[in-house]
Amino acid sequence: MAKSPEEEHPEKAFGWAATDPSGILSPFNFSRRATGDEDVRFKVLYCGICHSDLHSLKNDWGFSTYPLVPGHEIVGIVTEIGSKVKKFKVGDEVGVGCMVGACHSCSSCSNDHENYCRKTIFTYGATYHDGTTTYGGYSDTMVADERYCVRFPNNLPLDAGAPLLCAGITVYSPLKYYGLTEPGMNIGVVGLGGLGHVAVKFAKAFGLKVTVISTSPSKKKEAVDHLGADSFLVSSDPDQMEAAMETMDGILDTVSAPHAILPLIGLLKCDGKLVMVGAPDKPPELPVLSLLSESRFNKECGHATGRKMVGGSLIGGMKETQEMIDFAAKHNITADIEVVPMDYVNTAMERLAKADIRYRFVIDIGNTLAATKP
Amino acid sequence: MAKSPEEEHPEKAFGWAATDPSGILSPFNFSRRATGDEDVRFKVLYCGICHSDLHSLKNDWGFSTYPLVPGHEIVGIVTEIGSKVKKFKVGDEVGVGCMVGACHSCSSCSNDHENYCRKTIFTYGATYHDGTTTYGGYSDTMVADERYCVRFPNNLPLDAGAPLLCAGITVYSPLKYYGLTEPGMNIGVVGLGGLGHVAVKFAKAFGLKVTVISTSPSKKKEAVDHLGADSFLVSSDPDQMEAAMETMDGILDTVSAPHAILPLIGLLKCDGKLVMVGAPDKPPELPVLSLLSESRFNKECGHATGRKMVGGSLIGGMKETQEMIDFAAKHNITADIEVVPMDYVNTAMERLAKADIRYRFVIDIGNTLAATKP
Repeated sequence: MAKSPEEEHPEKAFGWAATDPSGILSPFNFSRRATGDEDVRFKVLYCGICHSDLHSLKNDWGFSTYPLVPGHEIVGIVTEIGSKVKKFKVGDEVGVGCMVGACHSCSSCSNDHENYCRKTIFTYGATYHDGTTTYGGYSDTMVADERYCVRFPNNLPLDAGAPLLCAGITVYSPLKYYGLTEPGMNIGVVGLGGLGHVAVKFAKAFGLKVTVISTSPSKKKEAVDHLGADSFLVSSDPDQMEAAMETMDGILDTVSAPHAILPLIGLLKCDGKLVMVGAPDKPPELPVLSLLSESRFNKECGHATGRKMVGGSLIGGMKETQEMIDFAAKHNITADIEVVPMDYVNTAMERLAKADIRYRFVIDIGNTLAATKP
Repeated sequence: MAKSPEEEHPEKAFGWAATDPSGILSPFNFSRRATGDEDVRFKVLYCGICHSDLHSLKNDWGFSTYPLVPGHEIVGIVTEIGSKVKKFKVGDEVGVGCMVGACHSCSSCSNDHENYCRKTIFTYGATYHDGTTTYGGYSDTMVADERYCVRFPNNLPLDAGAPLLCAGITVYSPLKYYGLTEPGMNIGVVGLGGLGHVAVKFAKAFGLKVTVISTSPSKKKEAVDHLGADSFLVSSDPDQMEAAMETMDGILDTVSAPHAILPLIGLLKCDGKLVMVGAPDKPPELPVLSLLSESRFNKECGHATGRKMVGGSLIGGMKETQEMIDFAAKHNITADIEVVPMDYVNTAMERLAKADIRYRFVIDIGNTLAATKP
């Protein structure tokens, strides 16, 4: 018979878990494995709340297992290292993102794309190599193969840097892969939330001209004055959209709510690229004509000038995640956060569901988790 | 008042035209402009019948004008050149494809992509710089700016080479642009018609492994034995599709009939590219999850491993069209054709509508048009 979460491993751990799809989190005693030869153990100080934590808690994707300890934007201080660990030492500031394992033998892994391995092991709610369930960062301690640990440079704040481990790499990787980092390029960012606000910061650091595209006119001041976007486009305003037709080299679409992509394709120049990093539940229609042809053939939008593409991207590999964190530290890029205590997490989830957060909740695990122990 | 087609230009011309959306073609007297300084005039010898000729004749896209002389796979012998023509001389074998003009000042034109210029002038049914309507290659003579004329190498047959001017460049350009020409790559070709059969030949010449993907099991022998495809996949056979999951670097989709693209995306490896060169009337659903994520998130097909893209492509620029023709000549690539006399054209259209042609009709203009003169 399988052992209980509290007994299956030698090291005691404490965190908050949901026990069913209500998603309500409450204090939870479990255990973590002993520090293996290639493992890094660390005391968790902060953990970001990602929108996918909320999806997982509610079993929106249908594969959640309970008890579920969420959290994949985890940072802390190394407390123990395995005998073969090369990159870290006790006292280092370290982070773990969305993955803690992969096959390390497929072509994706060989190319440093553990994120596209078919056997990627996610940081929580997945089955680890030893057959036990993985638990995330809403907990006091973490242990992970050093390959999945990222070094935090000294000048990068742990709290506001934590969300970069998911939100940051999710937007950084596609900008790089799809060739959207040449200074002077015009880039659109659709949606100004956890992903979008970080995308604006990375894009500006690359030297791009950034247009935030949003349904909410009220976000204009924030986008331009606070985040430094060059311009703002209200996607529901036909005149504004018309005026911006064929002006963009690329668009990063961070919106998960169902929405039409035809108007976005119209904003692209010839050879422009629309990159989806959010996945709407309801697939949008793909306006094929707009991808390939010029205006005469293209009565739908009357503007497209051809050879456009729609691509996807999912987080990034560990090598690129470290590169992204180093880039962020160099350019002083952090997430805009609201730090909350552990016992605020259920309220935070309710606010997140209403998009009532600018832009990322980060749980102060180090200072507030222990007090919630029953 | 506008002059009649027969009177608006000084040079008499004779061809076949449709006068209404019935699309029925019949003998037609019209005229062509005098040879301008940069123009090449040539006697038309052969003209391929492209599926878009049929769409235009029937006004399927809603912008046809009548009388309509179709034909944009036009080859012949130069009979006169303008005083500033540099690339051609009388007696040269020459071809004109889908375009006869563009703005020559936009960024697309500057990058040799006249095909993506917003002011591309198509070879027939469009308005030329002088305000007159363009007429295509189902006619005895042609005149075009030398920029839109392609030199036919001596060893490339005019009749079987003609279809390359549209079908050839339509498949050659995306293979190059999307990086699908590295020897050893696995490429899928969806649909074995006018475009598909030429795509197989170019792909083999690039050194690719080619899988033809079709709904018709009956095409297997043809694809493998005759065209040299390495394998054949019946898209309606779930077992075959399952076995081929995640094996392809790219797929060229030549099918214009509405069809799902999710199964095709499933065939792609990580970083794989699906390129649409046919445009279905009804836009397919875009399975965004399959573009970005791995199998755990991807219950729809259970296989995708991420970072895939869907792109479009429309013919190619003139520089690349010449490159394609030279490549075809070097590798002995021609279309498989059925040469028909001019007065067979209405029957050919009926057969084309039923896909009863392997694979391209070419009209023997030089030997059969004059006899149809009333």
